[in-house]
Amino acid sequence: MDIRQKSLEKHYEWNGKIEVISRVPISNAEDLSLAYTPGVAEPCLEIQKDYDKSFELTRRNNLVAVVTDGTAVLGLGDIGPEAGMPVMEGKCALFKEFGDVDAFPICVRSKDVDEIVNAIYLISGSFGGINLEDIAAPRCFEIEKKLKEKCDIPIFHDDQHGTAVIVAAGLINSLKLVGKKFEDIKVVMNGAGAAGIAIAKHLLNMGVKNITLCDSKGIICKGDERLNAVKREMAEITNLEHMTGTLADAMKGADVFLGISAAGCVSEEMVASMAKDPILFAMANPTPEIMPDLAKKAGAAVVGTGRSDFPNQINNVLAFPGIFRGALDCRASDINEEMKVAASFAIASLVSDSELNADYILPEAFDKRIGKTVAEAVKKAAIETGVARI
Amino acid sequence: MDIRQKSLEKHYEWNGKIEVISRVPISNAEDLSLAYTPGVAEPCLEIQKDYDKSFELTRRNNLVAVVTDGTAVLGLGDIGPEAGMPVMEGKCALFKEFGDVDAFPICVRSKDVDEIVNAIYLISGSFGGINLEDIAAPRCFEIEKKLKEKCDIPIFHDDQHGTAVIVAAGLINSLKLVGKKFEDIKVVMNGAGAAGIAIAKHLLNMGVKNITLCDSKGIICKGDERLNAVKREMAEITNLEHMTGTLADAMKGADVFLGISAAGCVSEEMVASMAKDPILFAMANPTPEIMPDLAKKAGAAVVGTGRSDFPNQINNVLAFPGIFRGALDCRASDINEEMKVAASFAIASLVSDSELNADYILPEAFDKRIGKTVAEAVKKAAIETGVARI
Repeated sequence: MDIRQKSLEKHYEWNGKIEVISRVPISNAEDLSLAYTPGVAEPCLEIQKDYDKSFELTRRNNLVAVVTDGTAVLGLGDIGPEAGMPVMEGKCALFKEFGDVDAFPICVRSKDVDEIVNAIYLISGSFGGINLEDIAAPRCFEIEKKLKEKCDIPIFHDDQHGTAVIVAAGLINSLKLVGKKFEDIKVVMNGAGAAGIAIAKHLLNMGVKNITLCDSKGIICKGDERLNAVKREMAEITNLEHMTGTLADAMKGADVFLGISAAGCVSEEMVASMAKDPILFAMANPTPEIMPDLAKKAGAAVVGTGRSDFPNQINNVLAFPGIFRGALDCRASDINEEMKVAASFAIASLVSDSELNADYILPEAFDKRIGKTVAEAVKKAAIETGVARI
Repeated sequence: MDIRQKSLEKHYEWNGKIEVISRVPISNAEDLSLAYTPGVAEPCLEIQKDYDKSFELTRRNNLVAVVTDGTAVLGLGDIGPEAGMPVMEGKCALFKEFGDVDAFPICVRSKDVDEIVNAIYLISGSFGGINLEDIAAPRCFEIEKKLKEKCDIPIFHDDQHGTAVIVAAGLINSLKLVGKKFEDIKVVMNGAGAAGIAIAKHLLNMGVKNITLCDSKGIICKGDERLNAVKREMAEITNLEHMTGTLADAMKGADVFLGISAAGCVSEEMVASMAKDPILFAMANPTPEIMPDLAKKAGAAVVGTGRSDFPNQINNVLAFPGIFRGALDCRASDINEEMKVAASFAIASLVSDSELNADYILPEAFDKRIGKTVAEAVKKAAIETGVARI
């Protein structure tokens, strides 16, 4: 049976993919008086006296909200808040499985930035962190920025930063294979949505100097009137040679192609026009920008995709559980650039030099070491950058 | 050790009283593709096509938000949203234990009615019901009313309606004992906050004709300029004899006294002035309006309190888990008066005629039959009144 049809049947069976359970015994009157009235008055007063105690005396210490407005769900687009919830519940199940993080799905019935920000801020005292998910660009940037300003807990838009962390991890190892360095490579990206822009910024933070960003109209260049505010900002820090033209123009001589765009937009000729030993992460889903076999035939040294049925899956599940685990463990007030860079290196480090090859640049999703390794690296970076609170 | 001190220690140990777990296996790539991408696209599209499917394909079908603004937490008053969370988590644990309802605690950082209403409405697509908790009067009335207008899921303020349901259940059995009927009795209530007003309305729905409501200033009477809007509304439907005066005046000749007020405001003389075989529910916490032994000495036939260390505890835990269980089981759009009346009779029915005595008018909290019995009665009433959706 088709996987999607089977999934639907399973969803009818499952009756929800998450569940809220009690961690305390309630089987007699004394249990009741400890977990509830009258005993519970004491922890309440303790938090009233010292707000920080809310991270010790309630589940906040391990609890992340997975929040969507349902406007950019998977590749399905704007399907509505409630329709996005199966993805959010799935994400919560992954948080628990891979990071032992309690995650709770919330959908917001609004497309207004300030309304969404205000609703999430108002309930943020119930959580230890906020994971934004499947919110359309450019709204997602503004929501994230405003929430970061207002809230005292980490805000993380996984479609942006989770993807960026994994792409960078994959690049670290791919560059090792071909003997190139971040500071020397020319990177061409197709797709300037939430993920594309976050990847570009993250790679600049990792030391890449030369990035050219394309959208469906071609190369993004300073001075182009049609650009929105976010792309205009990117035009200032990318495309240093002020190139104009098509994706094909941009790809000539490039060392790395990153696609977060659409099926089939890269041809064998375009791959052949790249520099020696080119690296391609063709992440369009379900059909990549170019199929791995074609890219390899045209000379690609390493190919990654978003799919689990090809080698080198660029899979966010390698990142977000460990990142939040690390942030929660040190009660970080933010997930900052340094923490994301640390996560990229931690993930890359799980592929040893002896294992590393063109079909194995990233650890497997079910590698039990990942969550812990990422968490430790992220926590260390949080402490070093002063955002850890314990 | 003092129960409150012990509870505090336990809260440090527990590390949160609720936990979010996964209900699905995630141990290999196929599991991932069913619970998450790419399979999850199908249930998403199914909900997009038919919104009602969100109650089948996500946990909404069993999920209640326990929402507070932290302004009227236990007897502690306005201690702030985060400080109220230990109570909310405790409530969620009770929901699970006594009704198998998944409940998730949410605190809202606002005291503005419209801001609270809007935040809760915006996230209401994530839940199958909303339980409001420990929100100060009169704001709680307005929040409840507006949420009922906006939301398509049941809204229930437990401090009001849960308490009312239990008081009525206790009265049903107490009146049996003394051989009186709802329509004949004179009820005097002290306390016109959220619980008091809800109890009065519920008793009117149960057939009581003669209720006199007092607040800290004395008898509430039509035409009194000092009354707020809510009390003015109550003055129209209670105190039919237009009495004025003190609580002591009101209690003369009354059959029932209900206290949701303050310690020690009822004297033995006041009890002695009541009709034959008076019933007193002195629910002030932790110290009742009059201690049970004194009330009995002065002639009380039945005495209930809010305390677990006296007989006849008026305990909300008998009501809310079963009420929401019943509402969720038939996907009720509302918890209406008929459903609450049904809950009162269902709870009362669990004390058989042979068990019924002045020290046993309500079932024990840990009686395993309660949740199911209440749920069935509530579901039946929902179906009969047309608010059930399955």
